[in-house]
Amino acid sequence: MPEHAAAWRLRLSGLCFLLQILNILLFAAFVRYNPESSPGQCPPQLNCSRRNQDSGFQQPRFQDVHVQALLSFGLLVAFLGRYGPGSVAISILIIAFAIQWAVLIQGIFYSFLNGKIYVGAQSMVSADFCTTAVLISTGAVLGRVNPVQMLLLALLEVTLCTLNEYILLSLMGVSDSGRSLTVHTFGAYFGLMVSRVLCQPHKDQRKREERQDMGHQTDLFAVVGTIYLWIFWPSFTSTTTVHDSAENWAVLNTYFSLVASTVATFILSPVLYEESTPRMVQIQDATLAGMAVMGMAGEMLVTPFGALIAGFLVGLISPLGFRFLTPVLRSRLKIQDTCGVHNIHGLPGILGALLGALLTLLATADTYGDRLELVFPLVAQGSRTIAYQALIQLSALPLTLLFATLGGCLTGEL
Amino acid sequence: MPEHAAAWRLRLSGLCFLLQILNILLFAAFVRYNPESSPGQCPPQLNCSRRNQDSGFQQPRFQDVHVQALLSFGLLVAFLGRYGPGSVAISILIIAFAIQWAVLIQGIFYSFLNGKIYVGAQSMVSADFCTTAVLISTGAVLGRVNPVQMLLLALLEVTLCTLNEYILLSLMGVSDSGRSLTVHTFGAYFGLMVSRVLCQPHKDQRKREERQDMGHQTDLFAVVGTIYLWIFWPSFTSTTTVHDSAENWAVLNTYFSLVASTVATFILSPVLYEESTPRMVQIQDATLAGMAVMGMAGEMLVTPFGALIAGFLVGLISPLGFRFLTPVLRSRLKIQDTCGVHNIHGLPGILGALLGALLTLLATADTYGDRLELVFPLVAQGSRTIAYQALIQLSALPLTLLFATLGGCLTGEL
Amino acid sequence: MPEHAAAWRLRLSGLCFLLQILNILLFAAFVRYNPESSPGQCPPQLNCSRRNQDSGFQQPRFQDVHVQALLSFGLLVAFLGRYGPGSVAISILIIAFAIQWAVLIQGIFYSFLNGKIYVGAQSMVSADFCTTAVLISTGAVLGRVNPVQMLLLALLEVTLCTLNEYILLSLMGVSDSGRSLTVHTFGAYFGLMVSRVLCQPHKDQRKREERQDMGHQTDLFAVVGTIYLWIFWPSFTSTTTVHDSAENWAVLNTYFSLVASTVATFILSPVLYEESTPRMVQIQDATLAGMAVMGMAGEMLVTPFGALIAGFLVGLISPLGFRFLTPVLRSRLKIQDTCGVHNIHGLPGILGALLGALLTLLATADTYGDRLELVFPLVAQGSRTIAYQALIQLSALPLTLLFATLGGCLTGEL
Repeated sequence: MPEHAAAWRLRLSGLCFLLQILNILLFAAFVRYNPESSPGQCPPQLNCSRRNQDSGFQQPRFQDVHVQALLSFGLLVAFLGRYGPGSVAISILIIAFAIQWAVLIQGIFYSFLNGKIYVGAQSMVSADFCTTAVLISTGAVLGRVNPVQMLLLALLEVTLCTLNEYILLSLMGVSDSGRSLTVHTFGAYFGLMVSRVLCQPHKDQRKREERQDMGHQTDLFAVVGTIYLWIFWPSFTSTTTVHDSAENWAVLNTYFSLVASTVATFILSPVLYEESTPRMVQIQDATLAGMAVMGMAGEMLVTPFGALIAGFLVGLISPLGFRFLTPVLRSRLKIQDTCGVHNIHGLPGILGALLGALLTLLATADTYGDRLELVFPLVAQGSRTIAYQALIQLSALPLTLLFATLGGCLTGEL
Repeated sequence: MPEHAAAWRLRLSGLCFLLQILNILLFAAFVRYNPESSPGQCPPQLNCSRRNQDSGFQQPRFQDVHVQALLSFGLLVAFLGRYGPGSVAISILIIAFAIQWAVLIQGIFYSFLNGKIYVGAQSMVSADFCTTAVLISTGAVLGRVNPVQMLLLALLEVTLCTLNEYILLSLMGVSDSGRSLTVHTFGAYFGLMVSRVLCQPHKDQRKREERQDMGHQTDLFAVVGTIYLWIFWPSFTSTTTVHDSAENWAVLNTYFSLVASTVATFILSPVLYEESTPRMVQIQDATLAGMAVMGMAGEMLVTPFGALIAGFLVGLISPLGFRFLTPVLRSRLKIQDTCGVHNIHGLPGILGALLGALLTLLATADTYGDRLELVFPLVAQGSRTIAYQALIQLSALPLTLLFATLGGCLTGEL
Repeated sequence: MPEHAAAWRLRLSGLCFLLQILNILLFAAFVRYNPESSPGQCPPQLNCSRRNQDSGFQQPRFQDVHVQALLSFGLLVAFLGRYGPGSVAISILIIAFAIQWAVLIQGIFYSFLNGKIYVGAQSMVSADFCTTAVLISTGAVLGRVNPVQMLLLALLEVTLCTLNEYILLSLMGVSDSGRSLTVHTFGAYFGLMVSRVLCQPHKDQRKREERQDMGHQTDLFAVVGTIYLWIFWPSFTSTTTVHDSAENWAVLNTYFSLVASTVATFILSPVLYEESTPRMVQIQDATLAGMAVMGMAGEMLVTPFGALIAGFLVGLISPLGFRFLTPVLRSRLKIQDTCGVHNIHGLPGILGALLGALLTLLATADTYGDRLELVFPLVAQGSRTIAYQALIQLSALPLTLLFATLGGCLTGEL
C-alpha cells in the first residue's frame, strides 16, 4: 500500500511543520532572554542582585549548558543499546520538539512575568529534564507507535510532567534535586500506562523478534552508552543542586551508588542466567538504576556507605525485576515494556523516593550543618519541622504515581 | 606497480619528517609560553594586568583547552558519517600538522613581540579554528587527493586562512565570534575551488561507488557524530566570545538554531525523498548547518525566536541545496563536492554573514545594554556608527569569498 | 564440563558478593565525607582555611569529578581498540571494585585521622589514578587470566601501587604530577611480571588468533578511543597539578607532545611495515605514548618545543619497540604482552621520568618564577637544593621498577 505510506509520510511532515511554526510564533510572542545574564539590564521584578552577588555560583551554570544535551542523549544512547539505531532519527525529532515545548510550558508555570517568559541557561536544564522524562516514556512504547503518535505523546507528557513538577517542587516544597520522582518515576509509569492502553499483542511479537537479531551492533552501543553514563551522569544529576558544597556530595554519592550497583549485577547475573559474565546491556541497566535511586537522596546522604548500600540493593532488585516482574507484567497486566523502563527507572525511582523520605526524617541540623539550608530551605527557616518535611516527601510519591498513571491512560486513549 | 607505491609511501614519510623537524626548529626559535598564565612573570610589553584583574574571566579559558580538540574532532566524526573510517588516519595527520603550523602562523600575525611568539590556551583555540577550516576544505576533496597533496593543502590554507582572519578581525574590526565567515565560508569555498581545479571525472566515479557500499557503518558514525555536535558545539562556538554574558546568549542561540534546523529536516525529507524519516547523515547535516548559520549572529541575536527562524530556514535550504544545487554544481561547473560542504558550510555561512550584517544594522544601545561594548567595541567607544559597522560586516563577505576562491585556485594549481 | 563452568561462575559471583560486603562494612566503619566541602563544618585537625581562601582554586576541582571516570574509561576504550568488546564486562567489574578499594587503601595512607577516612573530590581522582595502573597491568595479561584472578590482581596491585605512591610522593617528595612513574611505569612492569609468572604458551596462541579476527570492529574502537584521548587526556593529566598557572602549561605540553608523537608514527610506519598509512591502533598507541612521556615533565617544561621534541622521540621509539622489542621479550624472556603495554606505557614512562630528572636539574628560580613553589615546594622553601631534588627524582625510577617487578612476581605466584 504505497499510497497509504506516502500519505503517512506527508502527515508526519505536515505535523512537524505546523508544530514548528506554532513554536516559532509562541516564542516570538512570549519568550525573551533572561536579562539576568546581561548584568546591565535587570527589570525590577526580578531580584537579579542575589544571583550576581555570589559570583562563584554563576560560573558552574555555564558548564551546565555545556552538558545540557547530555542527559537526553546519554539516555538515547542507553536505549540504543536495547533497541538499535533504527529508532534514533525519531528520538532526535522528539528531543528537538520536546525541548522547545518544555521551554514554553515550563516558562508559563515558573517565570511568566508581565506576559513574557524569561529563559536562560537554567531554563534549558529544566527543559532537558522534562525531555528526559519523555524519552523514558518512549522507551516503554518504542517500536509500537508511529512517529505522529510519538509527537502527540511528547506534546501531552511535557505538559503533564511540568504540572507535576510544579506542584511537587514549587507548591509542596519537595526536595528532589536529581528528579527521582518527577523524571524517573513519572516517565516510567506514564510510558507503561500508554503501553497498556495501546497494547497490540500480534504486532509486538513481530517487533520483538526483529530486536533480537542485531546482537552485535547492540553490544557496541551498550558499551558506548555505559561509558557515557559513568562519565557524565554523576555531574549532571547534580546540576540542579543549588550550591557547590551540596553538589559535591551528590556527585560522589551518585558515583558510589553506580559502582555498587555494577558489582551487584556481576553477583546476580551468573545466578539468574546461564552466563559467566553479564552482557553489556545488563551492566548498562545496572548503571542507570544505580543513578535513578540517587536522584532524590543524592544530596541528602551524609555518608558514602549509605550510597554503596542503596546502589547495591537496587543493583540486586533491577535484574530480579527483569527476570520475574517483567514476564508477570506482560502476561497478567498486558503491559509491554520494550526497554524495561519499569526495572531501570520505575522501581529505582520509587526506592529513591522512599529512601529520600527516610533520610529526611533522620536529618538533623547537627549532621547537615550549613547544608540544611540548601537541602531543606523551609526547615532551616523554621517554617516546617523535619517530620512534616519527611511526610511531604513521602506523600509526593503516590501523587506522582497518580499523575503518571492518569496522564498515561489519557494520552494512550487519545 | 608495487615500486611506485613504495616510493609514494616513503615520500609521505619523508615529507612528514621534514615538516615536523621544521616545526620543531621554528618552535625552538620563536615560540614561548605566554608568561601571562604565570602571574609572577609578566614582561612590560604585555598588559597582563587587565586579564588578571577579572579573575572570573580566566577560569572559563581553561575549560576551553579542555575542549580545544573538540571542534576539529566533532567535524572529523561528522565526515566519518559521510565517508567512513578509511580516511581517518590521514585526517588525524592533517590535524596534528595543521595545529602546529597554525600556532606558528597565527603567532606571527597576532603576537610577534621582540621576535618571540607567546602561546597560551587562547592560541590553541585559535589554531583549532584554523584547523577546522582546513578540515572543511578537505571534506570537499576527500577521496580524490593523496596524503602528500593534503599536507600541502593544509600548509597553504592555514596561511591564507590566517591572513583572511587577520584582515577581517584585526584590521577591519568585523565581529565574527563563531567564525561564520572565516571558518565555514572560507573553508567551504576554498575546498570547492581546489576540487574544481583538480577535477578528474573518471576517478571520482569509482570512489563514489565505494562510498555507497558501507551503509551500515556510516549510519553508526552519523549517530555518534550528531550526538557529539549537539553536546559540544554550542559551547565551543562561543569560546571566542569574550565575556560571560555574551557567551551565554551565543550558546542558547546556537542551541535553538540547531533544534529548529533538525525539525526542518524532518519536514522536507519526506517531501524530497521517498523516505518516511530522514537518514542519520541528513540529520547530522542539518545540525551542522544550524550551527554554521549562528556563527556570526549567535552573539548578536537578542531574542530566542530569531534563532529558531534562522535555524528553521537554513534547515530547509540545506536539503534543497543537496537535492537541486549539488547536481548543478557537478554537471555545469564541474565541481565535485564529496561531503557536500557547500550545503553544510558554504550556504549557511553566507546566510549567517548576511544575517549578522542585518542584525548589526538593527542593533541599538537600548536592546544591547552593556553587551554593546562586548559585541561591537568600536561602536560602543563612539569611533564608528552602527550603520558603518553593518557595512563593514557586509563587505567582509565578498572579501572572504574572493580570498577563498583565489586561494583555492592557487592551491589547486600547485 | 558444564558442572565445572557452573562452579566457576558461582565462584566469581560469590567473590564479588564477599568483596562488596567487605567494602560496604569498611566504608561504614571508616569513610566519611570530607567536611571541607561543607564550609560550615571543619574539624580543627584539618586546615580547611587554606583551601577555602583561594576560591578560584575550589572551582576547577569540581570539574575534575566531572571527568574522574575519564582516565580509566579512556584507557578502557583504548584497550578495546586492541582487544575488542569481549573483555569489556570484566574490565568494568575491575574498575568498579578497584575504585572502592583504592579509596579505602589511599585513605589509610593519606588521610587516616582519628580513625576516620575523609573523602572528597580529590580522593576520587587519586583512586582513579590507581585504577588506571590496574587497568594498564590487566592490559598485559588480558585473555590469559580468569575474572577471579583479575579481581585478586586488582586487590593486591591497588595496595602496592598506593604504597609505592606514598613512599615516592609523600616521603621522598618526588614531583610526579601526571604520574609517569607511579601509574604508567608501575602499571606496565607490574603487569609484565605477572604475565611472565603466569606464562602458558599454548593457551596464548589460541587467544591471539581470536584477536586477529575482529579487524573491522577493532578499527572502529580505535577511532573512538583516539578521539577520546585527544579530547580529554591533556586536561585530565593535569588535574593533580595544584595551581592554575602550572596546570595550564601541563595541558599545553601534553597536547604538543601527542601532536608530535602522532606525526612521528606517520614517519616510521611506512618504513617499518608495508603500509602506506598507519592503522588506527598504531595512531592510538602513539597518542598514549606521547601522553605517558609528559606525565612527570608536563609541568616542568617551560618551552613548547621541548614537548614537541619529547613527543617526537617517544613517537619514534614506541613503534620501534613494537617491531623489535616485543618479539624479543616474547621469545627470550617468555613475557607475553597482550596489548603491548611495555611500548605504550613502560618505555614512555621511563623516558618521562628521565626527562623529568633532567629538567629538575636545569630548573632555576629565574625560568620558573613563582611556579617554582608550585612544582618543587621543598626547593622553593630552601630545604633542598635543585641538585638534590633531581637526584631524588632520578632515584624514584629504580625504586618504582623494583616495587613493580617484586609486586608483580608476588602477585603472579599467588
